[in-house]
Amino acid sequence: MTKVHDLETPVVTIDLDRLEKNIARAQAMVDAAGMKHRPHIKTHKIPDIAKMQLKAGASGLTCQKLSEAEVFIDAGLDDDLLITFNIVGQAKTEHLMRLSDRVNKLSVVADNEDVIRGLSEAGVRHGRDVPILIENDVGFGRNGVQSPEAALSLARYAMNMPRIKFEGLMAFPTTGEKAVDYFNRAVELFTADGIPLPILSGGGTPALMTLADFPMLTEHRPGTYVFNDVMMVHSGYASWDECALTVRATIVSTPTGDRAIIDAGSKAITREQYYVKNFGKVVEYPGAVVANVSEEHGILDFSGAENRPKVGEVVNIIPNHCCVCINMHDKVYGIRGEEVEIEWPVAARGKLI
Amino acid sequence: MTKVHDLETPVVTIDLDRLEKNIARAQAMVDAAGMKHRPHIKTHKIPDIAKMQLKAGASGLTCQKLSEAEVFIDAGLDDDLLITFNIVGQAKTEHLMRLSDRVNKLSVVADNEDVIRGLSEAGVRHGRDVPILIENDVGFGRNGVQSPEAALSLARYAMNMPRIKFEGLMAFPTTGEKAVDYFNRAVELFTADGIPLPILSGGGTPALMTLADFPMLTEHRPGTYVFNDVMMVHSGYASWDECALTVRATIVSTPTGDRAIIDAGSKAITREQYYVKNFGKVVEYPGAVVANVSEEHGILDFSGAENRPKVGEVVNIIPNHCCVCINMHDKVYGIRGEEVEIEWPVAARGKLI
Repeated sequence: MTKVHDLETPVVTIDLDRLEKNIARAQAMVDAAGMKHRPHIKTHKIPDIAKMQLKAGASGLTCQKLSEAEVFIDAGLDDDLLITFNIVGQAKTEHLMRLSDRVNKLSVVADNEDVIRGLSEAGVRHGRDVPILIENDVGFGRNGVQSPEAALSLARYAMNMPRIKFEGLMAFPTTGEKAVDYFNRAVELFTADGIPLPILSGGGTPALMTLADFPMLTEHRPGTYVFNDVMMVHSGYASWDECALTVRATIVSTPTGDRAIIDAGSKAITREQYYVKNFGKVVEYPGAVVANVSEEHGILDFSGAENRPKVGEVVNIIPNHCCVCINMHDKVYGIRGEEVEIEWPVAARGKLI
Repeated sequence: MTKVHDLETPVVTIDLDRLEKNIARAQAMVDAAGMKHRPHIKTHKIPDIAKMQLKAGASGLTCQKLSEAEVFIDAGLDDDLLITFNIVGQAKTEHLMRLSDRVNKLSVVADNEDVIRGLSEAGVRHGRDVPILIENDVGFGRNGVQSPEAALSLARYAMNMPRIKFEGLMAFPTTGEKAVDYFNRAVELFTADGIPLPILSGGGTPALMTLADFPMLTEHRPGTYVFNDVMMVHSGYASWDECALTVRATIVSTPTGDRAIIDAGSKAITREQYYVKNFGKVVEYPGAVVANVSEEHGILDFSGAENRPKVGEVVNIIPNHCCVCINMHDKVYGIRGEEVEIEWPVAARGKLI
């Protein structure tokens, strides 16, 4: 059996014990809140891991793009999928219809009339209902209608469009008082108008900690919890020993007393920063950080660490954001202790359409 | 023939007229400086473009990793390659030896004794000389020995190691007075010791503007000049109409008066920033910028622009850094006017080993 130290660096490994615990923990949290669990596959992009999530109790999956959904459908994950991205243009709505033929239920989101009209026209062309959720901007400043009133107005538009089956509302991320108020107000408005909201869908891994604040939600869509990363530790959701994904890298140079260079840069770890000033944590050297990255070089700063590494040594880097990190790799390795248990192609890597 | 507007977004297109002009311009600059031109393939990762560079007068190619070099060798580019990254560990030195068997000349760099010893042992195992350049840190703070004195000392070590063929010095980037002083002092030291320096290799696209300050260099290794990007415009090397690579993206939402969302985020454009506060320039709307990106969403800020886009409209984004952008795409399209002339697989995308 291949050993971890036989893997050529840079390479992503997944600690399978931690992965299994992470999946069980989040499922228990969503179960305790009485919601359905619809994990986002963007974090792993690997059908086998989606199967683990479903086996643990998830009732469906979330994908961001059509071509991602296609990868999971090809792998037999054809029960209940939600694509949380506006689908624009006839090439893409036709793609959606082809995928819908192969899935028990395939839902999408929309935040404007143009998108709904395109979906409606596709539904009419193919004699098929298109289930949709209205996307809401509850504070993130990305997609979404800007108020519960606008959601109601767009829902009315949707309900009048042929073949559109309005099913409820979604938002990302569902954290904070503003989001609570938004959903409460939306429920009030829709109820007053007699429009049912069978699905109210929230999202985000840190949001798992505050599900109790959102009793109106019917389902939750977390992603990052399967692996965790620096961002999740920073959020308070995870501890370092719940981080399942690391980038193994080799020290190739120690140009100065405090500086070491690894063979993993932005092409292996990415340049994502979020809440921190650096680009990743060095597991073996507390106090050392990835101070900078260029494409193939990671520049480690050891000024805050007690010990110093040698050329040829292998270190594990916990990336700031695991979802974007795995997208840089064609394959990853599931490990248990020193054994490599499985090689996984990152099947939905780079799926942009 | 496929038209540009038939391409599904997000997608990278390369303006072939601009690409050809960019290649000719840089070649003329290196020719005028009396240096050899050894472009870095990391910017394009496409053997056909390397062939255009060689046809225009380049005398060799630069790769960063073994697996990149292998892609170009497989495509018949087997005359003169330099890998500018420390090669550490027996798996990789064996890989180097296998590649060396297939190339007229394959050189590598080293900045420490461990790397040189590993290369020497591989050379001895295979009865093959390994040509090396010593890497120097002339101010960038990445790899490299820290002084001309250290370079001389490491060169002496290299010259005493079996099968190591010391050929000279390299650095990246070669800009600024500190770099000039470094190379002048190095030439002085090596000359005083009677050690020939047949190759002195500089790098960087902005450095093309100051080649005259480095008369001691024998070759130059620019990369980004083939496409250019926001960073190159910022450096003063390129103008916007010399940017050959853009990410075509579709407006999928206009949630507020000043905000629009495109279907290209960090997975298509990356989060690289460098000198700017945003993540890319919107060609069709001067004053609009990519204000933020998540994985699949680009958040455009139109507050500085005169006009507003509609859902369904396609815009072209000039990325901040084209080299990392192309690494996110499995294929790109070479276009001339409205015609798609060629589809190129990004053959060396994701080659990390």
